[in-house]
Amino acid sequence: ESAAIVPEVEETASAIASMEIRGAATIAGAAAEALATQARETAVEDPATFRATMRAAARRLHETRPTAVSLPNALRYVLQRMEGDDVETLRRRVVRSSARFTRRLEEARDRLGEVGANRLQDGDVVMTHCHSTDALACIEAALDQGKSLSAIVKETRPRNQGHITAEALRELDVPVTLIVDSAARRYLDEADHVLVGADSIAADGSVINKIGTSGLAVNARERGVPIMTAAQTIKLHPETLTGHTVEIETRDEDEVIDPATRSGIGDLTVENPAFDVTPPRYMDAIVTESGQFPPESIVTLMRELFGDGAETPWAEP
Amino acid sequence: ESAAIVPEVEETASAIASMEIRGAATIAGAAAEALATQARETAVEDPATFRATMRAAARRLHETRPTAVSLPNALRYVLQRMEGDDVETLRRRVVRSSARFTRRLEEARDRLGEVGANRLQDGDVVMTHCHSTDALACIEAALDQGKSLSAIVKETRPRNQGHITAEALRELDVPVTLIVDSAARRYLDEADHVLVGADSIAADGSVINKIGTSGLAVNARERGVPIMTAAQTIKLHPETLTGHTVEIETRDEDEVIDPATRSGIGDLTVENPAFDVTPPRYMDAIVTESGQFPPESIVTLMRELFGDGAETPWAEP
Amino acid sequence: ESAAIVPEVEETASAIASMEIRGAATIAGAAAEALATQARETAVEDPATFRATMRAAARRLHETRPTAVSLPNALRYVLQRMEGDDVETLRRRVVRSSARFTRRLEEARDRLGEVGANRLQDGDVVMTHCHSTDALACIEAALDQGKSLSAIVKETRPRNQGHITAEALRELDVPVTLIVDSAARRYLDEADHVLVGADSIAADGSVINKIGTSGLAVNARERGVPIMTAAQTIKLHPETLTGHTVEIETRDEDEVIDPATRSGIGDLTVENPAFDVTPPRYMDAIVTESGQFPPESIVTLMRELFGDGAETPWAEP
Amino acid sequence: ESAAIVPEVEETASAIASMEIRGAATIAGAAAEALATQARETAVEDPATFRATMRAAARRLHETRPTAVSLPNALRYVLQRMEGDDVETLRRRVVRSSARFTRRLEEARDRLGEVGANRLQDGDVVMTHCHSTDALACIEAALDQGKSLSAIVKETRPRNQGHITAEALRELDVPVTLIVDSAARRYLDEADHVLVGADSIAADGSVINKIGTSGLAVNARERGVPIMTAAQTIKLHPETLTGHTVEIETRDEDEVIDPATRSGIGDLTVENPAFDVTPPRYMDAIVTESGQFPPESIVTLMRELFGDGAETPWAEP
Amino acid sequence: ESAAIVPEVEETASAIASMEIRGAATIAGAAAEALATQARETAVEDPATFRATMRAAARRLHETRPTAVSLPNALRYVLQRMEGDDVETLRRRVVRSSARFTRRLEEARDRLGEVGANRLQDGDVVMTHCHSTDALACIEAALDQGKSLSAIVKETRPRNQGHITAEALRELDVPVTLIVDSAARRYLDEADHVLVGADSIAADGSVINKIGTSGLAVNARERGVPIMTAAQTIKLHPETLTGHTVEIETRDEDEVIDPATRSGIGDLTVENPAFDVTPPRYMDAIVTESGQFPPESIVTLMRELFGDGAETPWAEP
Amino acid sequence: ESAAIVPEVEETASAIASMEIRGAATIAGAAAEALATQARETAVEDPATFRATMRAAARRLHETRPTAVSLPNALRYVLQRMEGDDVETLRRRVVRSSARFTRRLEEARDRLGEVGANRLQDGDVVMTHCHSTDALACIEAALDQGKSLSAIVKETRPRNQGHITAEALRELDVPVTLIVDSAARRYLDEADHVLVGADSIAADGSVINKIGTSGLAVNARERGVPIMTAAQTIKLHPETLTGHTVEIETRDEDEVIDPATRSGIGDLTVENPAFDVTPPRYMDAIVTESGQFPPESIVTLMRELFGDGAETPWAEP
Repeated sequence: ESAAIVPEVEETASAIASMEIRGAATIAGAAAEALATQARETAVEDPATFRATMRAAARRLHETRPTAVSLPNALRYVLQRMEGDDVETLRRRVVRSSARFTRRLEEARDRLGEVGANRLQDGDVVMTHCHSTDALACIEAALDQGKSLSAIVKETRPRNQGHITAEALRELDVPVTLIVDSAARRYLDEADHVLVGADSIAADGSVINKIGTSGLAVNARERGVPIMTAAQTIKLHPETLTGHTVEIETRDEDEVIDPATRSGIGDLTVENPAFDVTPPRYMDAIVTESGQFPPESIVTLMRELFGDGAETPWAEP
Repeated sequence: ESAAIVPEVEETASAIASMEIRGAATIAGAAAEALATQARETAVEDPATFRATMRAAARRLHETRPTAVSLPNALRYVLQRMEGDDVETLRRRVVRSSARFTRRLEEARDRLGEVGANRLQDGDVVMTHCHSTDALACIEAALDQGKSLSAIVKETRPRNQGHITAEALRELDVPVTLIVDSAARRYLDEADHVLVGADSIAADGSVINKIGTSGLAVNARERGVPIMTAAQTIKLHPETLTGHTVEIETRDEDEVIDPATRSGIGDLTVENPAFDVTPPRYMDAIVTESGQFPPESIVTLMRELFGDGAETPWAEP
Repeated sequence: ESAAIVPEVEETASAIASMEIRGAATIAGAAAEALATQARETAVEDPATFRATMRAAARRLHETRPTAVSLPNALRYVLQRMEGDDVETLRRRVVRSSARFTRRLEEARDRLGEVGANRLQDGDVVMTHCHSTDALACIEAALDQGKSLSAIVKETRPRNQGHITAEALRELDVPVTLIVDSAARRYLDEADHVLVGADSIAADGSVINKIGTSGLAVNARERGVPIMTAAQTIKLHPETLTGHTVEIETRDEDEVIDPATRSGIGDLTVENPAFDVTPPRYMDAIVTESGQFPPESIVTLMRELFGDGAETPWAEP
Repeated sequence: ESAAIVPEVEETASAIASMEIRGAATIAGAAAEALATQARETAVEDPATFRATMRAAARRLHETRPTAVSLPNALRYVLQRMEGDDVETLRRRVVRSSARFTRRLEEARDRLGEVGANRLQDGDVVMTHCHSTDALACIEAALDQGKSLSAIVKETRPRNQGHITAEALRELDVPVTLIVDSAARRYLDEADHVLVGADSIAADGSVINKIGTSGLAVNARERGVPIMTAAQTIKLHPETLTGHTVEIETRDEDEVIDPATRSGIGDLTVENPAFDVTPPRYMDAIVTESGQFPPESIVTLMRELFGDGAETPWAEP
Repeated sequence: ESAAIVPEVEETASAIASMEIRGAATIAGAAAEALATQARETAVEDPATFRATMRAAARRLHETRPTAVSLPNALRYVLQRMEGDDVETLRRRVVRSSARFTRRLEEARDRLGEVGANRLQDGDVVMTHCHSTDALACIEAALDQGKSLSAIVKETRPRNQGHITAEALRELDVPVTLIVDSAARRYLDEADHVLVGADSIAADGSVINKIGTSGLAVNARERGVPIMTAAQTIKLHPETLTGHTVEIETRDEDEVIDPATRSGIGDLTVENPAFDVTPPRYMDAIVTESGQFPPESIVTLMRELFGDGAETPWAEP
Repeated sequence: ESAAIVPEVEETASAIASMEIRGAATIAGAAAEALATQARETAVEDPATFRATMRAAARRLHETRPTAVSLPNALRYVLQRMEGDDVETLRRRVVRSSARFTRRLEEARDRLGEVGANRLQDGDVVMTHCHSTDALACIEAALDQGKSLSAIVKETRPRNQGHITAEALRELDVPVTLIVDSAARRYLDEADHVLVGADSIAADGSVINKIGTSGLAVNARERGVPIMTAAQTIKLHPETLTGHTVEIETRDEDEVIDPATRSGIGDLTVENPAFDVTPPRYMDAIVTESGQFPPESIVTLMRELFGDGAETPWAEP
């Protein structure tokens, strides 16, 4: 007895691979739903076969973007909850976990925004780095709570995502002060909070985020300004449970200096890492849709949601 | 009996005022020489008259740029050494002090370069911020000592003076890696020294330098990388002896964001302070032509060279 | 089919509201018992009705002191464990959870005292701040273990609760040295441990305790003296999981300065916050009846005992 | 109805007591297997009797080495999972837990080695203190991953276990630099990681390890070098959950100074504690076979594996 | 040939001994003037005799209050400048030094007030501890400069000198917020500066001041708030040059707790040290009438004004 | 007109070169005396010739041990004070400076011992590292002051100079506890002071001392134990004024591991640097015969005694 991967899984996989489906949350949601469809349509009687089929479907999805964080998190969340002794139970568990995961995802931005907003007080000045929709969600929620905020926005070279943040905040009618990145320590004296997003979060409590976050965090601690990371739990990186360090993307050198200026200067190395790593001791809290956590405790949430990072539940046993 | 301010003083004053004479060292040298000329040509017999004439000449020079640092330092250095009971002695002291000051000035860059170079070792990687000829002098001297160095150059937004530094270093055949300011903490792990210049140095040991220096210094300490300031003693700011804080220049907002982008974002405050203040506890050494000093001790050198900041030796008693 | 709130719940609610029942532990115990009574006496057949009735009873209790910490913790503890598919199971779970909660409560002081005592060694000098029965329990237990202790007691202005602590310790025959609050850093050099209680404990590991605790903790770290908080788990504050900061009570200004002296001084603002917030990085351990925890991990215990702070299990779904 | 302790338990107990069975892992494995045998051979029908018999067997094993860490951990792991309402279930649970524990044990060194290795990068220089097979496992695994490493080995007075580490590393063809313990801070500037083992790990996140570890950790933080502890979970010390501090063994004074030299010096106190305590804030990660953890979170793993430290599941109720 | 101590010296000595002449500055001024009188009226021809007479006069003055700081400073200042080869020169030097010392003294409060005021900015909130006329001088001078200030005044148990400060500030129309000492860390977040006086200042840069200063300074650094000490140079303590630590006065225990309350509590030790010692690394600047200094540099000023602490220039050679 | 180097200078030079004259103080004293003899016996009339002769004598002495610290300090001290317009004055100045230098030298140990002793209190426990006669002088002086002390002596691998210290202290009847170097952090909790010597002291306030000093100092700060360096001023290293770093001697590898053990281990690099560098921020005070200084201020004393490090007063102009 055997079963095939259903067309919906294939379609989702193709769409992820072709980047039709993109964005951490969208990919994760699509993968979870594809697994639910697979479960519903896998009409076998042997539990082992059902499990094998589900793993195969998960592998198909996983191989499309093996280095993403949210995709395997979706697979882990669902497959890990696939427990039971008969197909019916297994199927129900998969479908229910998929639904629960999807609902978490839909509510995540609002819920974490609420949590982050609760840390802010009326009249606070918030310093931001880069552009993060999760961080923005906190500010939006605070405004919805009737709090008045203003923002100090670091431009965030080389890609100036601070401009996007500035524009988004202006649309919310938040007064914005734009500064160069180097001015951060000077303006920390006027900030009540630093609020950043995360690219991913490691088991040791480190926050991987846009280059410049770690230097900002060190200065925030030195200046006595609290700093928080807003990040949905799909940003948690279970592979770091096994000690894996997160690979830091290096981006195009032209972002740093345009080629004409560069050739005027002469032979030059240019380094343009996209992210850096902030140790947990410089971060006050990680704000997620499951509540806020000291960075040193995020590992507990990571294991609760996504299990032991050493297991890849989609692998052939 | 009275005496006039000599034409050379008037000419120097005009040239400073019109910015024909410009640059901290050039202004200081011209002022010291003008005082020597005044001394030589003031043919009076009464010591009190001589002194009054010298003070008048100094006031004339001082009023041209009352907020500069190097100009009053030149006047202080010379007038403070004008001691004696007869005109001949007074004149000799002025002429000699002026000559000594001028010679210091001429040799300063070389001598401090040597001191800074002695702190560097063959093979060191030096991180720089902004562009400073004094800092560059240290690197040049180290190269002259046969040491091989390479550099990590922060671009130093908003005016990208790092590009100037990069070009100067390339002309010296120093391998250069260019990074955005936010990447500093990440690349501190590859640097053996941080080397910055100074706009001015305060009595409490604080270093006033290009915006971003203080945040870099805090991170250098956190990463365990030694950091030094290269600065000629004309950058010492004796008025800070009396507790005066150094006024920080705010520069054009267009340096931070071009008006077109800005109007796209909407109503925005832009802050563009040119400098910031690094407390002495984050700086390992200040390198001058008189040797190196822990920042906490620079006040002793300041008083030795330029006296008590509360006195303005050019004032009417 | 519906069911009424039983008289015992009403009586407990009234007694809490009128402060006949007072004290964090007493309130919590009474609430848990009231829920058990409600469960025993709710003779319905529909599980949904049973649940609704229980929630209604919990709401009735909750509304009496909506800002207390221990009351909702009792309700959370019991209601969260109300799981099952039939009324019998639900009832049994409620009754059992209530009993377990009450037993925890009865044993809490002794058990945490034991834990705290285990951290102390024979001959230790313990510094205290304010008056805390949980902290005192640790000292009592240590004495019971045959350890000899002495104490440095901060008087704890403005209400001098240090005098109460001193008296309690004298009754235990512990040698006491009384000092003013300002003398704490000086006498930290003679202390082996600092031991404080808590008003409440936040999800980010912060300890909310009598004003002065945070300043003491910062100095204890600077002086290298370990500091622990003794607090029963009913002090954990699950609402902080969602980022809520703890409201700090401001007390009567006359506690700080008597009106006569005040009017002699002239028009004066007086600030008298009752508590302050100690960040987790300045606290070595939180000692509870469930054992000791690094402050950064207390969030795990909080969620285990009282669930997700975003849920109010007494609310209408 | 009653049941006897089976001969296998007696034999294991004797062998542990006589140190025929020795080494933390070997003892733990033998104890777990003895419990499984006991369970298999305890042919009673009353669950209470079964439980009592198992507890008696555990007590027999425990009393042989009451101060070891791994032995009670084995007993806790197995007995804690002995749940059920009938003997069959209880027996199955014991046998299965024993097997799982033994398998964990067998795989532990490899799995934690993998985790530690993942934290290292090709070309890294690793500083070691004392000799730890768990730490060595990380290096071996990194070599297996194809990474090239070199080591700075502290000799680790007084017993020079660094020589053992050096020899083991040389057999793996790792280039080794041997230094005296006092040279550690100087050579931290050339190290990318510090890697130590643990004698035991406390609930508050403290690492108990060979004397000198804490001073090394403080310097590693000061120099900005990450430091990790490699330790199997049998090193976790659940009794510290209840605040117990770990007794530090004092070893023979002749290890420190030979009697002849000593008598030449005169009447001398010699102190030779074997271990010291490193607070969690100076340790970046604890690497176990269950993954890596910030030290502040290890308490969660400790409770998950071995339960509440206040319970001794072998005690008569 | 010999010479007598003049009556004026005797009178001054008696008046200091009887505390008719009191207050650090008044004593110092009287002593300096007595020495000038002695110099003017000592009509001997042998320089050695003149010197011996001056030393005898100084000894007579010194013995009246051997533990004061300002009195020996006055003697040191004057005698140390008694140089020359003939009586006329010696006399002139003594008279001139005495006059210069007295003038410094008269101007000191105004001049240091100016220096401290220059460190403050319009709108600043200043936190104070205890009552210090030197600290107050800084605030007065800032108000005279047209700056608007407000103050957070710690009550400063046990003697509540904060009430005196509050009253003095209210007379200057400065808005005052009174807090208990324990509330300092909480209100540091609203302060721009901490401003304290000094009882004396040691060669190693330590500030000896009212108990509570050191704990406040540690917290000011932790919160990132600058802290300065305002102190006339007669507070510098040259005997600390030779390593002497400053004796800390212990005051009446009744200041801490009234006897009635105390006997209610039972047998109690009460400690009431008047001062504590703030290490230089927690103080940003010492503000004197000679300008501001980093605490680490005050030793240079101390030696310049009062010479080598090992010498007691009044001693028989 | 010319003059010869006198035989006494030649003899002293030979004796220094052949290490007949050895020990920092002995060399320095011999050199100073040789210069005095040269001055007395140089019977020329032209001041320029006299000066040239003196420089030649100094060069002769200097070339014997060009890397020592105390020898050039002796030459600097004397030659720098050789001022005047005629031979008689020059000679007198040299002879007098030589005498003063020699007297300083003779008294140095006693005077600095007194200073260090004044920092200690009756009953203090002092931790030592390596063997330093200057550090020992502090303890001896404290005993002479009637203070009772005890000592914790680090053995100081690899050469175990702690044994020498232990023996010397036992002869003084000081109770001694001997520990391995790694046990330092553990025993810092029982120490009141750390007391070390210095090999040399740099202009930036760094203390160069036996390997292990810097790691001890970092831990002393972390544990809140004050640490001081006892060092005669001939240990000050004026060449570091010009940024020169101090060359660290590497000693025989056999000191670290005996060749037999080494060859048993296999191919091994052994590093054995004799000294390390302690940054000023980890040292509380430097105790000299001129009094105590914060390390950040020692540069002032260095320049006062030995002038500007860039000048080598023995060089041909």
